[in-house]
Amino acid sequence: MKRWIARAGIGAVALVALACGKPKSKGGAIAASASVKELMAARGLTEADVEAALRTYVPSGKLDDYIVFASGGQSGQVLVIGAPSMRLLKLIGVYTPEPWQGYGYGGDGDAVLEGGKQNGHALEWADVHHPNLSETNGEYDGQVLFVNDKANARVAVVDLADFMTKQIVANPLAASDHGGTFVTQNTDYVIETSQYPAPLGREYAPLAEYKEKYRGVSVFWKFDRTTKRIDPNQSWALELPPYTQDLADAGKLDSDGWVFINSFNTEMAIGGTLEGKPPIESGASQNDMDYLHVIDWKKAEKLIADGKGQPIKGIRVLPLAVSAAERVITLIGEPKSPHGVDVTPDGKEIVVGGKLDTHATVYSFEKIKKLIDAQQFEGKDAYGLPILKFSDSIRGQAEIGLGPLHTVFDDKGNAYTSVFIESVVAKWSVKELKVIEKMPVHYNIGHILAAEGDTVSPDGKFVIAMNKMSLDRFSKVGPLYPQNFQLIGIDGEKMRMLADMPIGIGEPHYAQMIRADKLKPIKTYPLGENPYIGHKDPSATVAGQEKIVRKGNVVDVYMTAIRSHFTPDQIEVEQGDTVKLHITNLEQSEDQTHGFAISMHNVQLSLEPGRHENVTFVADKPGVYPMFCTEFCSALHLEMAGYLLVKPKAK
Amino acid sequence: MKRWIARAGIGAVALVALACGKPKSKGGAIAASASVKELMAARGLTEADVEAALRTYVPSGKLDDYIVFASGGQSGQVLVIGAPSMRLLKLIGVYTPEPWQGYGYGGDGDAVLEGGKQNGHALEWADVHHPNLSETNGEYDGQVLFVNDKANARVAVVDLADFMTKQIVANPLAASDHGGTFVTQNTDYVIETSQYPAPLGREYAPLAEYKEKYRGVSVFWKFDRTTKRIDPNQSWALELPPYTQDLADAGKLDSDGWVFINSFNTEMAIGGTLEGKPPIESGASQNDMDYLHVIDWKKAEKLIADGKGQPIKGIRVLPLAVSAAERVITLIGEPKSPHGVDVTPDGKEIVVGGKLDTHATVYSFEKIKKLIDAQQFEGKDAYGLPILKFSDSIRGQAEIGLGPLHTVFDDKGNAYTSVFIESVVAKWSVKELKVIEKMPVHYNIGHILAAEGDTVSPDGKFVIAMNKMSLDRFSKVGPLYPQNFQLIGIDGEKMRMLADMPIGIGEPHYAQMIRADKLKPIKTYPLGENPYIGHKDPSATVAGQEKIVRKGNVVDVYMTAIRSHFTPDQIEVEQGDTVKLHITNLEQSEDQTHGFAISMHNVQLSLEPGRHENVTFVADKPGVYPMFCTEFCSALHLEMAGYLLVKPKAK
Repeated sequence: MKRWIARAGIGAVALVALACGKPKSKGGAIAASASVKELMAARGLTEADVEAALRTYVPSGKLDDYIVFASGGQSGQVLVIGAPSMRLLKLIGVYTPEPWQGYGYGGDGDAVLEGGKQNGHALEWADVHHPNLSETNGEYDGQVLFVNDKANARVAVVDLADFMTKQIVANPLAASDHGGTFVTQNTDYVIETSQYPAPLGREYAPLAEYKEKYRGVSVFWKFDRTTKRIDPNQSWALELPPYTQDLADAGKLDSDGWVFINSFNTEMAIGGTLEGKPPIESGASQNDMDYLHVIDWKKAEKLIADGKGQPIKGIRVLPLAVSAAERVITLIGEPKSPHGVDVTPDGKEIVVGGKLDTHATVYSFEKIKKLIDAQQFEGKDAYGLPILKFSDSIRGQAEIGLGPLHTVFDDKGNAYTSVFIESVVAKWSVKELKVIEKMPVHYNIGHILAAEGDTVSPDGKFVIAMNKMSLDRFSKVGPLYPQNFQLIGIDGEKMRMLADMPIGIGEPHYAQMIRADKLKPIKTYPLGENPYIGHKDPSATVAGQEKIVRKGNVVDVYMTAIRSHFTPDQIEVEQGDTVKLHITNLEQSEDQTHGFAISMHNVQLSLEPGRHENVTFVADKPGVYPMFCTEFCSALHLEMAGYLLVKPKAK
Repeated sequence: MKRWIARAGIGAVALVALACGKPKSKGGAIAASASVKELMAARGLTEADVEAALRTYVPSGKLDDYIVFASGGQSGQVLVIGAPSMRLLKLIGVYTPEPWQGYGYGGDGDAVLEGGKQNGHALEWADVHHPNLSETNGEYDGQVLFVNDKANARVAVVDLADFMTKQIVANPLAASDHGGTFVTQNTDYVIETSQYPAPLGREYAPLAEYKEKYRGVSVFWKFDRTTKRIDPNQSWALELPPYTQDLADAGKLDSDGWVFINSFNTEMAIGGTLEGKPPIESGASQNDMDYLHVIDWKKAEKLIADGKGQPIKGIRVLPLAVSAAERVITLIGEPKSPHGVDVTPDGKEIVVGGKLDTHATVYSFEKIKKLIDAQQFEGKDAYGLPILKFSDSIRGQAEIGLGPLHTVFDDKGNAYTSVFIESVVAKWSVKELKVIEKMPVHYNIGHILAAEGDTVSPDGKFVIAMNKMSLDRFSKVGPLYPQNFQLIGIDGEKMRMLADMPIGIGEPHYAQMIRADKLKPIKTYPLGENPYIGHKDPSATVAGQEKIVRKGNVVDVYMTAIRSHFTPDQIEVEQGDTVKLHITNLEQSEDQTHGFAISMHNVQLSLEPGRHENVTFVADKPGVYPMFCTEFCSALHLEMAGYLLVKPKAK
């Protein structure tokens, strides 16, 4: 505990001494040995500010304790943030082409994006909502990250060995998703649930046939640990009623094998504003209760294995009638305009927040299970699904505030609920169902996340308020304002507001925070490795073996990159040729990345140490095109260049 | 100065008292009233760390003093960063489509990106290098930002009224650019200079004809303050020899009317690595001197006005022969493998760094001007350009270190030079030509920037080391490492290392730092404004006037958005129809942005308060497509939705 004195040397004494009120500075400028007190005065810092600064500052060369994976919202990407410093470490290209990473600009990553096509259209963005880290026994294992695209019903797989997107699967059934991605406690399945109902398989049906033909759907994507890929052939789905399904959470420990999906708009309002009908916002807010969907997915899995699924667009879908008869889906009322549903770390309870409610409602899994087993239902919905009695299914409700949304947990039995309208984080005792403290946030918090928050053992160190509006928090950057992540310390008796982080790229919806030491990414690739196939590329080239091979109008170029030149550095082709470049980065030192771009060809690659990339393009315009390294690699980086020459076709 | 005591209340006393060594905490956890000393011990902070934390921490609701505009490198975007907090405030979509801002996803911004086409190709990324803020009398005026695309020879105009990209101009002459963008002291011109030589107009010519047919080119884009746009018709260019032109800087005050462009590879090496010839990196490093290009652009402007320009691809180009004869371009030797060229704030001197040199060379504009006026040349180059004697043109050289690159200035006559190989910032006296202090940086600094650094009156508060490598500075995020911006305080006697900021999106090359109070962005748009035309859109719609109008197979939809619904919220069209949506956001409160997306259609808009957008698409696939707000706008944001129905074509 006294280590800092030795390390800081003589100066440290001066600093601590000055903090007792013996300033040495004379003029207006802060002297080099300025005391804490002087700095507080000069910069208008309060005591709480000083404490917050010292709890969040990470000095050069020291590392953050936690890594946050935040969805990038409309950016289509994932943000990687260090905590407590709240610094953006990386933006991972997921659904939107990202040129720094050479993702979607002519290289092998194009095929991943291609996998995300829907209706034959390239969809070059996404509304990324809920990232979920892979789990082993309900603990984050740091291997893989999943994220959904609400706008186009897709799920992506990001490999945390190299922080790269390796797969995008396009859901052929749904028109949008929101309740995704959520993983089961050993990541057997990645669950993706639709939001806005539509005919399954995206057929046309008029809105007049909404109740008959529109449906929700929950896809259980089978994850293969060996390949680190989703296997669509092993995946299946559940047909859901056309309530607007919202968030979801997978059971764990006691409730493993179950998943909980909530909904709003059980009124099945469809708007009609041009004709003067009430908009969905009021149509969907009539009922005091919507339905929590309690799903026995292990039973569903068995029924699918038994051939009870009906294939739609290549996916086996368990029909509603089967789910109703077999009690795969059971409904329970949930108040009012529900949004978040969160399973407690012990898996015993389920907490639901309602956007127009004031409570967090705590459901007991034990009670629910007993009622289902005893078939004690209070009725059925219009689709035949059994309904449990609300009051028999809950342990109780905590009075939280105006508009409780999402709930996370610490290691001491407390819950932290985001309260949108009231703009606070409410800390409350799960056992006592009583609010302990409220912390104002700035402003309009959506999700909240906690350190190791969705595991069976949250850390209890930090929560982050993911505020939707920032209003007066940051310097103005035009009419589109950043969001505001606020880091809050929860390891003391009282919550402490520690830092504001502007998010000026997309609107993140949810995020997860993992202990940094659980991540073990690789630092370089084995020589010639193609990260998308996971081993050495068949076209990998070593020094001295570079060559240009022409077959008809296809020109294969086997290239290498090393500080600071490409071999070859002159490539001449004929107009109309198909050019295939195969480039191996021969570097094996950390951080020795080369880029590769060709002027006017929309080609941009990132070649991390050892990595191999392949590019194919048609040389359609005659001319002279510089090709060059785009990642500053050495003093002579600018000299790491050459020319692609495209000779005009003889007329 | 004592305000903090009152504000912080009773606790403040405890904090300051505790700093004197009277800790109150008992256990391992840090108590709520933890003292500075306790926090230092618990988090391993040194005295310097505490000072750095307190000099950079910006509490919630307080604003940064400076705003940094950094090029995004390969990301194709611009980063907006607050200083001293070093928080990313916004990523501005410039050359790469950016969906959060609805830029390039079906809306009116598509036309801006369309303007950046080259060779008939959409180029959906850029290698963004040098941002330049508009200037009035050599001071940043906070109106406009310009940035170049090295990969595809383009210049973009970002309007700082709303932080949006309003124009991309495609240079039809060059194959790449690097020495751009640089503005003249009243932003009459935005200067863009090519890097890798190529035949002007991008014609084909074999590398064997490099010396005869390959050329550099410098385009002087005329900027119109009224329209805030570049006017290509008023723009013109200078033909340059096929030396590889590098960075540039415009003269100011005494040297206004001149521009200084350096070069490397006056050897005109072209590589040939596959045939065993030396790569460009060694071929271009043979000469001890390359050429600084001293350009009398006011004379060139006059010659162009007098009709001496030759039109190439629609741009008037002043031929090398005219420039040589009229002494528009004069060359001076510069050592060795030069990179950065920076005009001093008083406009009297020009500092050049050489990648393989150890000096900063200080040229005297007065000496240069006298020599040119007296036509005292020591010879001509192969292209007829007059050459001044190196020793007669300089005031002297400062011994800096290994690989000096770029130089910025403070308000006290000091220069700060980035030294790549040595990984330091060297502070030196311009007058004395002597190094005062060196600060290690982490690692391999490229550019350096200073607060108000490129103006006639730098502030002398901060510099930022833009380090190319970060190696061990941050938690690992896969083999592609972030860059590292290091904030350094320069207002004390010694430089102070204050903060590391990871840059995990693109590799910024240069940045400028402006006083935050100089920026006056708008907070909302007047109702119905289209930001791209700068006034109310002809299709702007007010509440109650919404309608759907069909003419043949074109369906015009006049829509409004307000918390929390769209009108109309049901749109039914026939397969094959061309659908034109015209959407006005009726909100007038700050930060009340709505998004608008259509499932499966690659349509995503950002509708800031008051803003109007237009989208056109063909409804080619029958089906049911949710359309919804993508920016969390209210408690019932998820209910802000509707449907686009595409009815199958009758067969």
